[in-house]
Amino acid sequence: MKIKPLGNRILAKKVEQEERRTAGGIVLPESAKSEKVVRAKVLALGTDESFDVKEGDEVLVSSYAGTEIEHGEDKLLLVQKKDILAIIE
Amino acid sequence: MKIKPLGNRILAKKVEQEERRTAGGIVLPESAKSEKVVRAKVLALGTDESFDVKEGDEVLVSSYAGTEIEHGEDKLLLVQKKDILAIIE
Amino acid sequence: MKIKPLGNRILAKKVEQEERRTAGGIVLPESAKSEKVVRAKVLALGTDESFDVKEGDEVLVSSYAGTEIEHGEDKLLLVQKKDILAIIE
Amino acid sequence: MKIKPLGNRILAKKVEQEERRTAGGIVLPESAKSEKVVRAKVLALGTDESFDVKEGDEVLVSSYAGTEIEHGEDKLLLVQKKDILAIIE
Amino acid sequence: MKIKPLGNRILAKKVEQEERRTAGGIVLPESAKSEKVVRAKVLALGTDESFDVKEGDEVLVSSYAGTEIEHGEDKLLLVQKKDILAIIE
Amino acid sequence: MKIKPLGNRILAKKVEQEERRTAGGIVLPESAKSEKVVRAKVLALGTDESFDVKEGDEVLVSSYAGTEIEHGEDKLLLVQKKDILAIIE
Amino acid sequence: MKIKPLGNRILAKKVEQEERRTAGGIVLPESAKSEKVVRAKVLALGTDESFDVKEGDEVLVSSYAGTEIEHGEDKLLLVQKKDILAIIE
Repeated sequence: MKIKPLGNRILAKKVEQEERRTAGGIVLPESAKSEKVVRAKVLALGTDESFDVKEGDEVLVSSYAGTEIEHGEDKLLLVQKKDILAIIE
Repeated sequence: MKIKPLGNRILAKKVEQEERRTAGGIVLPESAKSEKVVRAKVLALGTDESFDVKEGDEVLVSSYAGTEIEHGEDKLLLVQKKDILAIIE
Repeated sequence: MKIKPLGNRILAKKVEQEERRTAGGIVLPESAKSEKVVRAKVLALGTDESFDVKEGDEVLVSSYAGTEIEHGEDKLLLVQKKDILAIIE
Repeated sequence: MKIKPLGNRILAKKVEQEERRTAGGIVLPESAKSEKVVRAKVLALGTDESFDVKEGDEVLVSSYAGTEIEHGEDKLLLVQKKDILAIIE
Repeated sequence: MKIKPLGNRILAKKVEQEERRTAGGIVLPESAKSEKVVRAKVLALGTDESFDVKEGDEVLVSSYAGTEIEHGEDKLLLVQKKDILAIIE
Repeated sequence: MKIKPLGNRILAKKVEQEERRTAGGIVLPESAKSEKVVRAKVLALGTDESFDVKEGDEVLVSSYAGTEIEHGEDKLLLVQKKDILAIIE
Repeated sequence: MKIKPLGNRILAKKVEQEERRTAGGIVLPESAKSEKVVRAKVLALGTDESFDVKEGDEVLVSSYAGTEIEHGEDKLLLVQKKDILAIIE
């Protein structure tokens, strides 16, 4: 089964967030603030002509945007172009 | 009786979702997350000129979009173009 | 008394929904789902230039759209073009 | 005192609704449904160039639209063009 | 002190509503309905090029529109063009 | 430290409202009505090309508009062009 | 790890607000009013063509706008162009 996003949407796969540590090495619990953003890897682009991202890019997406689909073990996201906040390089 | 969608709408038929199993073969109950999307087969296109989908395509549609109609045994959906998220190939 | 719809509106007359039966012949009570749509016959078109429907067409209209008027025994609807979901043929 | 509507508005005078009777001659109390529409006679047109109605026309107006003014014994309405649903002929 | 309205706004002064009497001469208390409209005299026009009203006109304004300012004894209103419902002649 | 407003915004400094007195000289307490407007002096214009106000003008601004910043003793406002209601001359 | 903002967004780093003192040298506690604005340093511009700010600028951003990300010790913000209120010089 292959999912092909339509229009201005991309298909992306959620990336598990690494544990965050302070400078002193203490593991911080997930705070409310950091739940506003989701890290994901671009799997496919929609049918629109231009995108600022390409397949394989790792992106930050607003947690309140997009539609989540469970696909076997993976958590996939269908997200509109305008809700991709940034690329992580 | 035949239903002909108007304008930017398509008519689609809901597809029963297969049971989802984890890698270890355990059947997972429907989670809240996966209820955000509906799988459907395109039966007819509206009167608009262009669509990214065609008759027979299997699509993912947002659960919060479209209007459901019961037609005999079938659950049909009238959905606007913009609410079709992806094609399943 | 004759009612002539204005602009992008049509005048339609509600059609009583036939009893719905399952394959096994059991009459199903009206479910919440099926209350989202109303079946109606087009009586007159508004003053706009083009419509996808014509007088006599039987249409499906969103239950949440349009304005209902009681006219003698009949239940009439004044509905905007964009809220006519499909034609029934 | 004369009231001259501005822009896309008309001035209309509410018409008392006749008692509604069933085929069998029984007077029906005002139901919730029928309160969605108001019958009114057009008294004056606004300063916009074109209207689908003219002075003297009897119209149906959405009850949720327009601004009501009491003028002596009369109940007047200032209603925008887009909220005039139909002409009664 | 002089107040000069900007853009599509006018400055107007609220006019005390005369007591309203029925044909039979009985004074009616202010009803909820009639509180939807305010009578005001235009004092100045904004910086936009065209207005349907001029200085000195008496107008009807929606009670829910505009910003009220107390200026000495007067109650002034800064109202947008689109919220002036009618001229009283 | 100097604050330079961007786009269609101005920077203004709130002016303390003088005590309001009736004709008879009685000091009126701040009423709810008069809290809808704020008096302010324009300190700087944004980067947009044209403004109806200039530096030094005293303006009336809607209390519900703009963002307040405390800057030492002063209360400054960053307000969009469209929310400046009038100039006081 | 480097974060590259997309479209009309900038990436900025929150600046700790200095203690605010009155003329008489008394430290004021954070008031509700001053929480409406956040001070931040621009780290990177999005992929849009023109911005009113450049890298290194210190800006005021509405507290209700943008998405916060914790990045090691830093609090970063992804903010849209229209929500940057002013530059601090």
